[in-house]
Amino acid sequence: MRIDIQFLPVPPDPLALSRKTAVVIDVLRATSVIVHAISRGALEVVPVETVEEAFEEVKDFPQGSTLLGGERGSKKIEGFDLGNSPREYTAEKVRGKRLILTTTNGTKAFHSVSSGREVIAGSFFNISAMTQFCLDRNQNVLIYPSGDGGRFSLEDTVCGGMLIDRMIKTEGDAIALTDAAYSAHILYQRFEANLIGAFYASIHGKDLVAKGFEADLVYCAQVDIIDIVPTFRDGVIRSR
Amino acid sequence: MRIDIQFLPVPPDPLALSRKTAVVIDVLRATSVIVHAISRGALEVVPVETVEEAFEEVKDFPQGSTLLGGERGSKKIEGFDLGNSPREYTAEKVRGKRLILTTTNGTKAFHSVSSGREVIAGSFFNISAMTQFCLDRNQNVLIYPSGDGGRFSLEDTVCGGMLIDRMIKTEGDAIALTDAAYSAHILYQRFEANLIGAFYASIHGKDLVAKGFEADLVYCAQVDIIDIVPTFRDGVIRSR
Repeated sequence: MRIDIQFLPVPPDPLALSRKTAVVIDVLRATSVIVHAISRGALEVVPVETVEEAFEEVKDFPQGSTLLGGERGSKKIEGFDLGNSPREYTAEKVRGKRLILTTTNGTKAFHSVSSGREVIAGSFFNISAMTQFCLDRNQNVLIYPSGDGGRFSLEDTVCGGMLIDRMIKTEGDAIALTDAAYSAHILYQRFEANLIGAFYASIHGKDLVAKGFEADLVYCAQVDIIDIVPTFRDGVIRSR
Repeated sequence: MRIDIQFLPVPPDPLALSRKTAVVIDVLRATSVIVHAISRGALEVVPVETVEEAFEEVKDFPQGSTLLGGERGSKKIEGFDLGNSPREYTAEKVRGKRLILTTTNGTKAFHSVSSGREVIAGSFFNISAMTQFCLDRNQNVLIYPSGDGGRFSLEDTVCGGMLIDRMIKTEGDAIALTDAAYSAHILYQRFEANLIGAFYASIHGKDLVAKGFEADLVYCAQVDIIDIVPTFRDGVIRSR
Protein backbone atom coordinates (compact mmCIF):
# COMPACT_ATOMS: atom_id res chain seq x y z
CA MET A 1 0.00 0.00 0.00
CA ARG A 2 1.29 3.43 -0.96
CA ILE A 3 0.52 6.61 0.95
CA ASP A 4 0.85 10.07 -0.54
CA ILE A 5 -0.09 13.47 0.84
CA GLN A 6 -0.66 16.46 -1.37
CA PHE A 7 0.87 19.55 0.19
CA LEU A 8 -1.02 22.12 -1.86
CA PRO A 9 -4.80 21.96 -2.34
CA VAL A 10 -4.68 21.70 -6.12
CA PRO A 11 -7.30 19.23 -7.41
CA PRO A 12 -5.45 15.98 -8.18
CA ASP A 13 -5.76 14.02 -11.41
CA PRO A 14 -9.20 12.34 -11.16
CA LEU A 15 -8.01 9.24 -13.00
CA ALA A 16 -5.10 8.64 -10.62
CA LEU A 17 -7.46 9.15 -7.71
CA SER A 18 -10.13 6.74 -8.89
CA ARG A 19 -8.45 3.74 -7.24
CA LYS A 20 -7.45 5.46 -4.01
CA THR A 21 -8.89 6.32 -0.66
CA ALA A 22 -8.89 10.12 -0.38
CA VAL A 23 -8.67 11.51 3.14
CA VAL A 24 -9.76 15.14 3.46
CA ILE A 25 -8.31 16.93 6.47
CA ASP A 26 -9.23 20.40 7.69
CA VAL A 27 -8.59 19.88 11.35
CA LEU A 28 -9.07 23.60 12.15
CA ARG A 29 -11.99 23.20 11.76
CA ALA A 30 -14.24 21.89 8.96
CA THR A 31 -13.50 18.17 9.16
CA SER A 32 -13.48 18.34 12.97
CA VAL A 33 -16.96 19.88 12.72
CA ILE A 34 -18.15 17.20 10.28
CA VAL A 35 -16.85 14.27 12.35
CA HIS A 36 -18.28 15.82 15.52
CA ALA A 37 -21.68 16.65 14.03
CA ILE A 38 -22.21 13.20 12.56
CA SER A 39 -21.09 11.55 15.80
CA ARG A 40 -23.75 13.60 17.57
CA GLY A 41 -26.48 12.31 15.30
CA ALA A 42 -26.58 14.69 12.31
CA LEU A 43 -28.14 12.74 9.40
CA GLU A 44 -25.81 14.12 6.79
CA VAL A 45 -23.58 17.05 5.96
CA VAL A 46 -23.82 18.74 2.58
CA PRO A 47 -20.60 20.66 1.86
CA VAL A 48 -21.23 23.64 -0.44
CA GLU A 49 -18.82 26.22 -1.75
CA THR A 50 -20.64 29.52 -1.36
CA VAL A 51 -22.95 31.18 1.14
CA GLU A 52 -25.47 31.74 -1.68
CA GLU A 53 -25.49 28.03 -2.49
CA ALA A 54 -26.13 27.26 1.17
CA PHE A 55 -29.18 29.55 1.25
CA GLU A 56 -30.47 28.04 -2.02
CA GLU A 57 -29.89 24.47 -0.89
CA VAL A 58 -31.77 24.88 2.39
CA LYS A 59 -34.95 25.79 0.49
CA ASP A 60 -35.11 22.25 -0.95
CA PHE A 61 -35.82 20.71 2.43
CA PRO A 62 -38.75 20.86 4.88
CA GLN A 63 -38.49 23.70 7.37
CA GLY A 64 -36.84 22.68 10.62
CA SER A 65 -35.09 19.70 9.05
CA THR A 66 -31.95 21.48 8.02
CA LEU A 67 -29.34 23.69 9.66
CA LEU A 68 -26.88 26.08 8.08
CA GLY A 69 -23.33 26.03 9.41
CA GLY A 70 -19.93 27.38 8.53
CA GLU A 71 -17.72 30.43 8.51
CA ARG A 72 -16.18 33.23 6.55
CA GLY A 73 -13.07 34.82 8.03
CA SER A 74 -13.43 32.16 10.77
CA LYS A 75 -16.68 33.78 11.96
CA LYS A 76 -20.29 32.59 11.86
CA ILE A 77 -22.13 33.72 8.74
CA GLU A 78 -25.07 36.10 9.14
CA GLY A 79 -28.34 34.22 8.97
CA PHE A 80 -26.69 30.86 9.69
CA ASP A 81 -27.62 28.61 12.60
CA LEU A 82 -24.12 27.54 13.56
CA GLY A 83 -20.52 28.70 13.13
CA ASN A 84 -17.44 26.54 12.65
CA SER A 85 -16.69 25.44 16.23
CA PRO A 86 -17.12 21.68 16.72
CA ARG A 87 -18.32 22.36 20.25
CA GLU A 88 -21.44 24.05 18.87
CA TYR A 89 -22.49 20.86 17.13
CA THR A 90 -24.10 19.19 20.16
CA ALA A 91 -26.55 16.29 20.02
CA GLU A 92 -29.24 18.67 21.24
CA LYS A 93 -28.79 20.88 18.20
CA VAL A 94 -27.95 18.47 15.39
CA ARG A 95 -29.53 15.08 16.11
CA GLY A 96 -31.74 14.04 13.20
CA LYS A 97 -30.87 17.16 11.24
CA ARG A 98 -29.34 17.70 7.83
CA LEU A 99 -26.48 20.16 7.91
CA ILE A 100 -25.46 22.42 5.04
CA LEU A 101 -21.89 23.52 5.61
CA THR A 102 -19.76 26.12 3.87
CA THR A 103 -16.25 26.96 5.01
CA THR A 104 -13.25 28.66 3.40
CA ASN A 105 -11.13 25.59 2.70
CA GLY A 106 -12.60 22.33 3.91
CA THR A 107 -15.90 22.10 2.08
CA LYS A 108 -14.24 22.79 -1.30
CA ALA A 109 -11.68 20.06 -0.62
CA PHE A 110 -14.30 17.28 -0.71
CA HIS A 111 -15.33 18.27 -4.22
CA SER A 112 -11.67 18.50 -5.32
CA VAL A 113 -11.14 14.82 -4.52
CA SER A 114 -14.64 13.57 -5.33
CA SER A 115 -13.26 11.11 -7.90
CA GLY A 116 -11.59 9.10 -5.12
CA ARG A 117 -12.89 5.55 -4.79
CA GLU A 118 -13.66 6.46 -1.21
CA VAL A 119 -13.55 9.99 0.19
CA ILE A 120 -13.48 10.30 3.96
CA ALA A 121 -13.27 13.08 6.55
CA GLY A 122 -10.28 12.93 8.88
CA SER A 123 -9.41 14.76 12.09
CA PHE A 124 -7.59 14.05 15.33
CA PHE A 125 -10.99 13.04 16.77
CA ASN A 126 -11.19 9.91 14.63
CA ILE A 127 -7.56 8.93 13.94
CA SER A 128 -7.96 5.27 14.91
CA ALA A 129 -11.22 4.86 13.01
CA MET A 130 -9.78 6.34 9.83
CA THR A 131 -6.59 4.32 10.16
CA GLN A 132 -8.67 1.17 10.34
CA PHE A 133 -10.80 2.31 7.41
CA CYS A 134 -7.71 2.85 5.23
CA LEU A 135 -6.20 -0.48 6.23
CA ASP A 136 -9.46 -2.34 5.60
CA ARG A 137 -9.74 -0.84 2.11
CA ASN A 138 -6.20 -1.99 1.34
CA GLN A 139 -5.81 0.47 -1.54
CA ASN A 140 -3.44 3.39 -2.02
CA VAL A 141 -4.20 6.47 0.04
CA LEU A 142 -4.06 10.15 -0.88
CA ILE A 143 -4.20 12.45 2.12
CA TYR A 144 -5.56 15.83 1.08
CA PRO A 145 -4.99 18.63 3.59
CA SER A 146 -7.45 21.34 2.64
CA GLY A 147 -4.84 24.03 3.26
CA ASP A 148 -5.18 27.62 4.28
CA GLY A 149 -6.53 29.77 1.46
CA GLY A 150 -4.71 27.69 -1.12
CA ARG A 151 -1.53 27.50 0.91
CA PHE A 152 0.17 24.64 2.76
CA SER A 153 -1.18 24.21 6.27
CA LEU A 154 0.95 22.81 9.08
CA GLU A 155 -1.86 21.57 11.28
CA ASP A 156 -3.57 19.49 8.58
CA THR A 157 -0.22 18.01 7.59
CA VAL A 158 0.59 17.00 11.16
CA CYS A 159 -2.81 15.30 11.38
CA GLY A 160 -2.08 13.51 8.10
CA GLY A 161 1.33 12.56 9.50
CA MET A 162 -0.39 10.97 12.48
CA LEU A 163 -2.48 8.80 10.16
CA ILE A 164 0.73 7.78 8.38
CA ASP A 165 2.37 6.99 11.72
CA ARG A 166 -0.52 4.75 12.74
CA MET A 167 -0.51 2.94 9.41
CA ILE A 168 3.25 2.33 9.56
CA LYS A 169 2.97 1.07 13.12
CA THR A 170 0.34 -1.45 12.04
CA GLU A 171 1.66 -2.52 8.66
CA GLY A 172 5.38 -1.75 8.81
CA ASP A 173 7.25 -2.23 5.55
CA ALA A 174 4.07 -3.02 3.65
CA ILE A 175 3.51 0.76 3.58
CA ALA A 176 5.41 2.71 0.90
CA LEU A 177 5.67 6.45 1.37
CA THR A 178 6.19 9.23 -1.16
CA ASP A 179 8.67 11.97 -0.20
CA ALA A 180 5.72 14.09 0.88
CA ALA A 181 4.25 11.36 3.11
CA TYR A 182 7.69 10.67 4.57
CA SER A 183 8.03 14.38 5.35
CA ALA A 184 4.56 14.64 6.87
CA HIS A 185 5.54 11.79 9.17
CA ILE A 186 8.62 13.72 10.30
CA LEU A 187 6.47 16.80 10.93
CA TYR A 188 4.06 14.71 12.99
CA GLN A 189 6.91 13.28 15.03
CA ARG A 190 8.05 16.80 15.89
CA PHE A 191 4.64 17.50 17.47
CA GLU A 192 3.78 13.99 18.66
CA ALA A 193 4.15 14.83 22.36
CA ASN A 194 2.39 18.16 21.96
CA LEU A 195 -0.15 18.13 19.13
CA ILE A 196 -1.64 21.44 20.11
CA GLY A 197 1.82 22.91 19.60
CA ALA A 198 1.26 22.44 15.85
CA PHE A 199 -1.91 24.52 16.12
CA TYR A 200 -0.18 27.30 18.01
CA ALA A 201 2.73 27.28 15.54
CA SER A 202 0.52 27.47 12.45
CA ILE A 203 -0.56 30.71 10.79
CA HIS A 204 -4.21 29.65 10.85
CA GLY A 205 -4.03 28.55 14.50
CA LYS A 206 -2.57 31.92 15.49
CA ASP A 207 -5.32 33.68 13.56
CA LEU A 208 -8.00 31.65 15.36
CA VAL A 209 -6.46 32.52 18.73
CA ALA A 210 -6.42 36.21 17.77
CA LYS A 211 -10.12 35.98 16.86
CA GLY A 212 -11.09 34.42 20.19
CA PHE A 213 -11.31 30.76 19.17
CA GLU A 214 -8.49 29.37 21.31
CA ALA A 215 -10.92 26.94 22.97
CA ASP A 216 -11.41 25.33 19.53
CA LEU A 217 -7.70 24.61 19.31
CA VAL A 218 -7.84 22.80 22.64
CA TYR A 219 -10.98 20.94 21.59
CA CYS A 220 -9.74 19.92 18.13
CA ALA A 221 -6.44 18.55 19.51
CA GLN A 222 -8.28 15.66 21.22
CA VAL A 223 -7.31 12.29 19.79
CA ASP A 224 -9.66 9.33 19.36
CA ILE A 225 -12.72 10.70 21.07
CA ILE A 226 -14.94 9.62 18.13
CA ASP A 227 -15.12 6.24 16.45
CA ILE A 228 -16.74 7.00 13.10
CA VAL A 229 -15.54 7.66 9.55
CA PRO A 230 -17.76 10.11 7.66
CA THR A 231 -17.78 9.29 3.95
CA PHE A 232 -18.45 11.69 1.08
CA ARG A 233 -20.49 10.29 -1.79
CA ASP A 234 -22.78 11.93 -4.35
CA GLY A 235 -22.20 15.33 -2.81
CA VAL A 236 -23.18 14.31 0.73
CA ILE A 237 -21.22 13.23 3.81
CA ARG A 238 -22.70 10.49 5.95
CA SER A 239 -21.54 7.99 8.51
CA ARG A 240 -20.77 4.90 6.52
CA MET B 1 11.43 39.77 5.71
CA ARG B 2 9.12 36.90 4.90
CA ILE B 3 10.24 33.51 3.62
CA ASP B 4 7.96 31.09 1.84
CA ILE B 5 8.69 27.80 0.12
CA GLN B 6 6.41 26.31 -2.48
CA PHE B 7 6.11 22.59 -1.96
CA LEU B 8 4.74 21.73 -5.40
CA PRO B 9 6.31 23.03 -8.61
CA VAL B 10 3.23 24.88 -9.82
CA PRO B 11 4.15 28.24 -11.40
CA PRO B 12 3.42 30.91 -8.76
CA ASP B 13 1.44 34.08 -9.38
CA PRO B 14 3.84 36.31 -11.39
CA LEU B 15 2.52 39.49 -9.77
CA ALA B 16 3.14 38.22 -6.22
CA LEU B 17 6.60 37.12 -7.28
CA SER B 18 7.62 40.41 -8.87
CA ARG B 19 8.87 41.86 -5.59
CA LYS B 20 10.55 38.72 -4.29
CA THR B 21 13.82 36.88 -4.57
CA ALA B 22 13.08 33.48 -6.11
CA VAL B 23 15.48 30.70 -5.19
CA VAL B 24 15.37 27.70 -7.53
CA ILE B 25 16.62 24.48 -5.98
CA ASP B 26 17.19 21.19 -7.76
CA VAL B 27 20.00 19.90 -5.64
CA LEU B 28 19.95 16.46 -7.35
CA ARG B 29 21.23 17.72 -9.71
CA ALA B 30 20.44 20.64 -12.05
CA THR B 31 21.19 23.58 -9.76
CA SER B 32 24.23 21.78 -8.37
CA VAL B 33 25.43 21.45 -11.99
CA ILE B 34 24.74 25.13 -12.71
CA VAL B 35 26.51 26.43 -9.61
CA HIS B 36 29.42 24.10 -10.24
CA ALA B 37 29.75 24.88 -13.96
CA ILE B 38 29.71 28.64 -13.46
CA SER B 39 32.22 28.38 -10.60
CA ARG B 40 34.51 26.52 -13.00
CA GLY B 41 34.37 29.31 -15.54
CA ALA B 42 31.37 28.58 -17.78
CA LEU B 43 30.29 31.92 -19.30
CA GLU B 44 26.60 31.26 -18.98
CA VAL B 45 24.01 28.52 -18.72
CA VAL B 46 20.92 28.58 -20.95
CA PRO B 47 18.20 26.41 -19.39
CA VAL B 48 15.87 25.00 -22.05
CA GLU B 49 12.90 22.72 -21.69
CA THR B 50 13.29 20.16 -24.46
CA VAL B 51 16.09 18.24 -26.13
CA GLU B 52 14.94 19.61 -29.50
CA GLU B 53 15.24 23.19 -28.21
CA ALA B 54 18.76 22.43 -27.04
CA PHE B 55 19.81 21.19 -30.49
CA GLU B 56 18.17 24.24 -32.11
CA GLU B 57 19.72 26.69 -29.68
CA VAL B 58 23.25 25.41 -30.16
CA LYS B 59 23.11 26.28 -33.88
CA ASP B 60 22.91 29.98 -32.99
CA PHE B 61 26.45 30.04 -31.65
CA PRO B 62 29.91 29.60 -33.20
CA GLN B 63 31.07 26.01 -33.30
CA GLY B 64 33.17 25.05 -30.29
CA SER B 65 31.76 27.87 -28.15
CA THR B 66 28.85 25.96 -26.73
CA LEU B 67 28.28 22.68 -24.91
CA LEU B 68 25.10 20.65 -24.55
CA GLY B 69 24.39 19.21 -21.11
CA GLY B 70 21.58 17.55 -19.24
CA GLU B 71 19.64 14.36 -18.74
CA ARG B 72 16.54 12.38 -19.44
CA GLY B 73 15.73 9.56 -17.03
CA SER B 74 18.85 10.77 -15.14
CA LYS B 75 21.07 9.70 -18.04
CA LYS B 76 23.15 11.69 -20.52
CA ILE B 77 21.25 12.54 -23.69
CA GLU B 78 22.47 11.06 -26.98
CA GLY B 79 24.50 13.60 -28.91
CA PHE B 80 25.11 15.77 -25.84
CA ASP B 81 28.55 16.70 -24.53
CA LEU B 82 27.80 16.30 -20.85
CA GLY B 83 25.32 14.57 -18.56
CA ASN B 84 23.91 15.85 -15.29
CA SER B 85 26.73 15.05 -12.85
CA PRO B 86 28.32 18.22 -11.39
CA ARG B 87 31.65 16.39 -11.33
CA GLU B 88 31.68 16.34 -15.13
CA TYR B 89 31.63 20.12 -15.29
CA THR B 90 35.35 20.66 -14.73
CA ALA B 91 37.24 23.86 -15.54
CA GLU B 92 39.01 21.97 -18.30
CA LYS B 93 35.72 21.25 -20.03
CA VAL B 94 33.60 24.33 -19.36
CA ARG B 95 35.89 27.35 -18.93
CA GLY B 96 34.92 30.07 -21.39
CA LYS B 97 32.05 28.02 -22.77
CA ARG B 98 28.34 28.62 -23.04
CA LEU B 99 26.29 25.73 -21.73
CA ILE B 100 22.84 24.74 -22.94
CA LEU B 101 21.18 22.65 -20.29
CA THR B 102 18.00 20.61 -20.31
CA THR B 103 16.91 18.50 -17.37
CA THR B 104 13.63 16.95 -16.26
CA ASN B 105 12.76 19.36 -13.47
CA GLY B 106 15.35 22.03 -12.80
CA THR B 107 15.58 23.88 -16.09
CA LYS B 108 11.80 24.30 -16.30
CA ALA B 109 11.76 25.71 -12.78
CA PHE B 110 13.73 28.82 -13.76
CA HIS B 111 11.14 29.74 -16.35
CA SER B 112 8.30 29.08 -13.87
CA VAL B 113 9.63 31.79 -11.54
CA SER B 114 11.09 34.12 -14.17
CA SER B 115 8.91 36.99 -12.95
CA GLY B 116 10.85 37.11 -9.68
CA ARG B 117 12.70 40.36 -9.08
CA GLU B 118 15.80 38.23 -8.75
CA VAL B 119 15.96 34.55 -9.66
CA ILE B 120 18.93 32.61 -8.30
CA ALA B 121 20.22 29.05 -8.36
CA GLY B 122 20.64 27.39 -4.96
CA SER B 123 22.35 24.21 -3.82
CA PHE B 124 24.27 22.96 -0.81
CA PHE B 125 27.44 24.08 -2.61
CA ASN B 126 26.57 27.76 -2.23
CA ILE B 127 24.42 27.97 0.90
CA SER B 128 26.35 30.81 2.53
CA ALA B 129 26.58 32.82 -0.68
CA MET B 130 22.87 32.56 -1.35
CA THR B 131 22.01 33.34 2.27
CA GLN B 132 24.05 36.53 1.99
CA PHE B 133 22.44 37.35 -1.35
CA CYS B 134 18.93 37.02 0.12
CA LEU B 135 19.83 39.08 3.17
CA ASP B 136 21.47 41.81 1.07
CA ARG B 137 18.38 42.08 -1.14
CA ASN B 138 16.21 42.51 1.97
CA GLN B 139 13.04 41.52 0.15
CA ASN B 140 10.69 38.61 0.64
CA VAL B 141 11.96 35.24 -0.52
CA LEU B 142 10.19 32.43 -2.34
CA ILE B 143 12.12 29.18 -2.32
CA TYR B 144 11.09 27.06 -5.30
CA PRO B 145 12.14 23.40 -5.10
CA SER B 146 11.91 22.11 -8.63
CA GLY B 147 10.39 18.85 -7.43
CA ASP B 148 10.47 15.38 -8.86
CA GLY B 149 8.32 15.08 -11.96
CA GLY B 150 5.79 17.55 -10.55
CA ARG B 151 5.88 16.00 -7.10
CA PHE B 152 7.25 17.24 -3.79
CA SER B 153 10.94 16.44 -3.36
CA LEU B 154 12.50 15.89 0.05
CA GLU B 155 16.07 16.74 -0.90
CA ASP B 156 15.27 20.14 -2.41
CA THR B 157 13.11 20.99 0.58
CA VAL B 158 15.88 20.10 3.04
CA CYS B 159 18.25 22.36 1.09
CA GLY B 160 15.64 25.14 1.22
CA GLY B 161 15.29 24.48 4.94
CA MET B 162 19.02 24.99 5.36
CA LEU B 163 18.75 28.42 3.70
CA ILE B 164 15.91 29.24 6.10
CA ASP B 165 18.00 28.06 9.04
CA ARG B 166 20.90 30.29 8.04
CA MET B 167 18.64 33.30 7.56
CA ILE B 168 16.98 32.79 10.95
CA LYS B 169 20.36 32.42 12.63
CA THR B 170 21.48 35.74 11.15
CA GLU B 171 18.31 37.78 11.42
CA GLY B 172 16.33 36.09 14.20
CA ASP B 173 12.82 37.43 14.71
CA ALA B 174 13.09 39.75 11.71
CA ILE B 175 12.35 36.65 9.59
CA ALA B 176 8.69 35.65 9.30
CA LEU B 177 7.97 32.14 8.07
CA THR B 178 4.92 30.72 6.35
CA ASP B 179 3.73 27.30 7.55
CA ALA B 180 5.59 25.75 4.62
CA ALA B 181 8.87 27.51 5.44
CA TYR B 182 8.47 26.61 9.11
CA SER B 183 7.98 22.97 8.08
CA ALA B 184 10.95 22.99 5.68
CA HIS B 185 13.05 24.19 8.59
CA ILE B 186 11.90 21.25 10.72
CA LEU B 187 12.73 18.86 7.85
CA TYR B 188 16.19 20.41 7.56
CA GLN B 189 16.76 20.02 11.29
CA ARG B 190 15.97 16.32 11.01
CA PHE B 191 18.86 15.91 8.53
CA GLU B 192 21.16 18.66 9.80
CA ALA B 193 23.78 16.24 11.13
CA ASN B 194 23.49 13.98 8.09
CA LEU B 195 22.50 15.88 4.95
CA ILE B 196 23.20 12.98 2.67
CA GLY B 197 20.64 11.03 4.68
CA ALA B 198 17.98 13.20 3.02
CA PHE B 199 19.30 12.11 -0.38
CA TYR B 200 19.24 8.45 0.55
CA ALA B 201 15.73 8.79 2.01
CA SER B 202 14.29 10.50 -1.05
CA ILE B 203 12.65 8.71 -3.96
CA HIS B 204 14.84 10.55 -6.47
CA GLY B 205 18.03 9.87 -4.48
CA LYS B 206 17.20 6.17 -4.36
CA ASP B 207 16.60 6.17 -8.10
CA LEU B 208 19.97 7.84 -8.73
CA VAL B 209 21.72 5.23 -6.58
CA ALA B 210 19.95 2.46 -8.50
CA LYS B 211 21.16 4.00 -11.78
CA GLY B 212 24.77 4.14 -10.63
CA PHE B 213 25.01 7.81 -9.63
CA GLU B 214 25.67 7.36 -5.92
CA ALA B 215 28.90 9.37 -6.23
CA ASP B 216 26.76 12.36 -7.23
CA LEU B 217 24.86 12.15 -3.95
CA VAL B 218 28.11 12.31 -2.03
CA TYR B 219 29.36 15.18 -4.20
CA CYS B 220 26.14 17.23 -4.05
CA ALA B 221 25.95 16.97 -0.23
CA GLN B 222 29.02 19.19 0.15
CA VAL B 223 28.23 22.48 1.88
CA ASP B 224 29.83 25.83 1.07
CA ILE B 225 32.44 24.69 -1.39
CA ILE B 226 31.46 27.45 -3.85
CA ASP B 227 31.05 31.16 -3.18
CA ILE B 228 28.94 32.37 -6.09
CA VAL B 229 25.26 33.01 -6.74
CA PRO B 230 24.21 32.28 -10.32
CA THR B 231 21.40 34.60 -11.39
CA PHE B 232 18.78 33.94 -14.07
CA ARG B 233 17.84 36.93 -16.22
CA ASP B 234 16.49 37.21 -19.78
CA GLY B 235 16.58 33.46 -20.17
CA VAL B 236 20.23 33.05 -19.20
CA ILE B 237 22.02 32.15 -15.97
CA ARG B 238 25.26 33.98 -15.18
CA SER B 239 27.38 34.71 -12.19
CA ARG B 240 26.19 38.07 -10.93
